[in-house]
Amino acid sequence: MNEDPYLDPIEELITTYNELNSSVIEELHEEPSPLEFMRFVAKNTPFVVRGGAASWKATQTWSPRFLAEHLGQEPVNVAVTPLGNADSPTLHEDGETLVFAKPWEEQQPFTDFLNYVIQQENDPSSLSQDAEVRYAQTQNDNLRDEYASLFSHVQPDIPFARIALQKPPEAINLWIGNWRSVTALHKDNYENIYVQILGQKHFVLLPPLCHPCVNERNLPPAHYKRTPDDNLKLEHEHGEADDDIPFATWDPDTPENSTTPYSKLARPVRVTLNPGDMLYLPALWYHKVSQSCLPEEGICVAVNYWYDMDFTGPLYPFSSFVRSVYKDK
Amino acid sequence: MNEDPYLDPIEELITTYNELNSSVIEELHEEPSPLEFMRFVAKNTPFVVRGGAASWKATQTWSPRFLAEHLGQEPVNVAVTPLGNADSPTLHEDGETLVFAKPWEEQQPFTDFLNYVIQQENDPSSLSQDAEVRYAQTQNDNLRDEYASLFSHVQPDIPFARIALQKPPEAINLWIGNWRSVTALHKDNYENIYVQILGQKHFVLLPPLCHPCVNERNLPPAHYKRTPDDNLKLEHEHGEADDDIPFATWDPDTPENSTTPYSKLARPVRVTLNPGDMLYLPALWYHKVSQSCLPEEGICVAVNYWYDMDFTGPLYPFSSFVRSVYKDK
Repeated sequence: MNEDPYLDPIEELITTYNELNSSVIEELHEEPSPLEFMRFVAKNTPFVVRGGAASWKATQTWSPRFLAEHLGQEPVNVAVTPLGNADSPTLHEDGETLVFAKPWEEQQPFTDFLNYVIQQENDPSSLSQDAEVRYAQTQNDNLRDEYASLFSHVQPDIPFARIALQKPPEAINLWIGNWRSVTALHKDNYENIYVQILGQKHFVLLPPLCHPCVNERNLPPAHYKRTPDDNLKLEHEHGEADDDIPFATWDPDTPENSTTPYSKLARPVRVTLNPGDMLYLPALWYHKVSQSCLPEEGICVAVNYWYDMDFTGPLYPFSSFVRSVYKDK
Repeated sequence: MNEDPYLDPIEELITTYNELNSSVIEELHEEPSPLEFMRFVAKNTPFVVRGGAASWKATQTWSPRFLAEHLGQEPVNVAVTPLGNADSPTLHEDGETLVFAKPWEEQQPFTDFLNYVIQQENDPSSLSQDAEVRYAQTQNDNLRDEYASLFSHVQPDIPFARIALQKPPEAINLWIGNWRSVTALHKDNYENIYVQILGQKHFVLLPPLCHPCVNERNLPPAHYKRTPDDNLKLEHEHGEADDDIPFATWDPDTPENSTTPYSKLARPVRVTLNPGDMLYLPALWYHKVSQSCLPEEGICVAVNYWYDMDFTGPLYPFSSFVRSVYKDK
C-alpha cells in the first residue's frame, strides 16, 4: 500500500484503491444468495450474472414483433434528441457554453416509436442524415406504469436483492432504444440491478472515489424543444446559478478530453451485457452506458431495478468528503 | 445533509456522518444470521447481542476458583505496568516526552497472577499505594496456545461471522485483569467479536472517520523494565524516527485534553458488556476499553475473536484518505 509521504492525498486514495481492487468485473453463472449479494454490497463492488435472467418470460418471448403486437398504438413517453444525448453535457449552439441537455419529451404511439427506432438502426440511409434519435428512457417506474401490461413478463423484484436489502424496488424501469442513444457518465443514489433483454449494453464503470477523475462541472440546464418546422432547438432554462446541475464532463471513452489531473488514474471497469445477463451496479458508481442491437431485431431492450441505497454507514459521507476535498483544492 | 459551501470538508464529513447515524448502539437479543451480520459489516456499524454467549460453558462455569483449579501454577504471560497503562500514551518521567509505553512482560505461575489481580481489586490497601498492575492481555491467539486447555469452554469460532466473512478467526484472545487496566483508544485491522465472561467491560467507540478527532501523534516507543530493586522503569527504545508509533492521544473520557479542532465533533458510542454479552466491533473503529469486576469475583475475563478485515472495497482507502487529508492540513 502506498505510503509515499509526498503523494497527494487524492492520488494516494485512487492509487490505493486500484492496488487493492480488480478492474475486471467478477462473473457469476447463477444468481447469488442474499448473503453472497450482501458481500458485494458491503464492498460496494459490481458483478455480472451471466444468464441470470435467461429463463424470464421477457428474455424468452420479447421481440420487436411481440412488443408491437402487445402494445399496439398505446401512447408511450419518448425522449427525443438530435444526437442520442438525452441528459448529457452538450455544447450549446453558441459554440461556447457546455449545458446539461434534457431531451424533448412527447407521447408517441408505441408502434410508430418502435418502427422508427428499428428503421434508424437497420436502414439509416432511409432517414435524413440529421434525423432525430428516440429513446424510451423515463426512469419513473415506467414498467409498473405505462408498460404495466408487460410487467408480468419480468420478475416483480430481484429476490436476492429484496431479501438482502430488506426493501422492495423503488422503481422498475424499461429502456428501449438503438445504438444512437448513449447515457452519459453519471451516478445514482440507488443499488441497481440491470437486466438485458434484447441486444447488448456496454457499461463503463468507475467507483465513487473516482469523483476527482470525472471533471464534474456545474452545467446550466437546457432542454430540447420541437420547433414548428420540426427541428430540435436547445433552449436555456433561465434560472438561478443554483439551478446548475453538477455533472461529469470527462468521458472514459475519449480520455484525452476534458481531463482533470486525476483522470489518468481512473481504471474503468468495462462489461457488456448480453440478453439474459444481470448486472449489479453498486450505489454511487459512475456509469456510462451505450448499446448495440442485433440486425434481426434493430432494438435494444433492458429492465432495471432501483433499490434505495443505505445512507447510514461510511459510504455516503466518505464519497461526499472526496467531492469536498477535490472542490477545495 | 449539510451542504454549507463554507464548511471545512473534514467538519462536513463528521457532521454528515453524525446526522445519518445513531450514537446509540443497536441491541440484539439473539445472535444474528450470517446475512443479518453482513448488513452490519456492510455499514461498518457495531451492535451488541445481549446474552449472546450466556449458554457457553465458559459463561456458565468460569470463576476465580474454577480457573485456579484448572490452570494451577502453569506459567502464563503477564503484562506488568505501574498504572495499568500497557500500550498507552504515557508521559515519560522526564515530564516532557509523551511515549508509547509497552508493558514489562514476564511469565508468572497462573495462580500467583490470579491471586494478585483479585487482591488488588478487592483489598487494595493490602498492597503498597504504587503497586504494579498485572494484565493477561497477549493478543497472540493465546486461547489456542497458553490457555488451550480452556479453549473447549468457548466456541471454536463465531458461526455467523465465519459464514458471513468466509474465513476462520485469525486469533482468539483471552483477557484477564482488574479495574486498574485500561486499554487506550486505538483501532485494529480486524472485524472483532468481543465476548464478556466475568465482570464488565466498558467500551467507548468511534467510527474510522473520527481520525481527525483523536489527535494521532507519532510517539517514540518505550517499554517498562523491572529493575533489580523491583521497580518498573520506562526505557526509551533507541531507534529511528521511523520507529515512532502513530497513536491516538485524545481520550473521549477527558475530552478537554489533547484536543484537535475536530475532537468536539466526535459522538462516541458507549456500551457496557455484562457476562454473556457479545459485541461486534467493526474493523478500523477506535475503541477504548475499561473494566470493572464483581466484588465476589475480583477479576474481569473476556474472550475476543479477530477476523481479518476485507481490504477490498472503499472502506480502507477512504479511511486512509481521511488520515492523509488531515495530515496535509
